[in-house]
Amino acid sequence: MFLAQVHVTYKPSILDPQAVAIKNAMHRLAFDQVTAVRQGKYFEITLDVSTAEEAESQIEAICDQLLANPNMETYRYEVKELANQ
Amino acid sequence: MFLAQVHVTYKPSILDPQAVAIKNAMHRLAFDQVTAVRQGKYFEITLDVSTAEEAESQIEAICDQLLANPNMETYRYEVKELANQ
Repeated sequence: MFLAQVHVTYKPSILDPQAVAIKNAMHRLAFDQVTAVRQGKYFEITLDVSTAEEAESQIEAICDQLLANPNMETYRYEVKELANQ
Repeated sequence: MFLAQVHVTYKPSILDPQAVAIKNAMHRLAFDQVTAVRQGKYFEITLDVSTAEEAESQIEAICDQLLANPNMETYRYEVKELANQ
C-alpha cells in the first residue's frame, strides 16, 4: 500500500483572483506582513500496488486525466509506502 | 522572509462526498487500485517577518480566523526561511 500526497496549483503565469481575495482578507484582519498567497488543491490518495514505481505511474496518469487541468495547472506529488496493517 | 505551506483538511470524522466522487471517477477511469481519497486545500503564504516563531504564530492566527473552519477542518503547516533575494 502506498500513499501519494498530490498538490495541484496554478501555473505561475495564471492569474489567481481567489488567492488575491484571500490575501486582501488577511490584510483586512491586520496580517499586514503577508506579501503573497498562492492556493491550490491537495489530495491524499491510497493505492493498493506493490511498488513505488507503479504508484508513481498511476498517480501521474490520474493527475493528467482527472485532477489537473494541463492548460492552467501543474502538479507535484510524493509517494511513500504505508506500514503493513 | 518566510514561506508557510499550509494544508487544511476535513477532520477524519467528517463525511467528504467530494472525495468519494473523485474516488468513483478514478474507478470509472479504471484506476481500480485506488482504495481511498482525501482532499483538502493548500496554501503557500509568504510572510515578511524576521523569525520563524513570528511566522508560526501569524500562520496559526490566520488559520484560526480565516482559512480553516474549526468545526469541520484541521490544519497543519511548515514554515521555512526563504533565501534573501
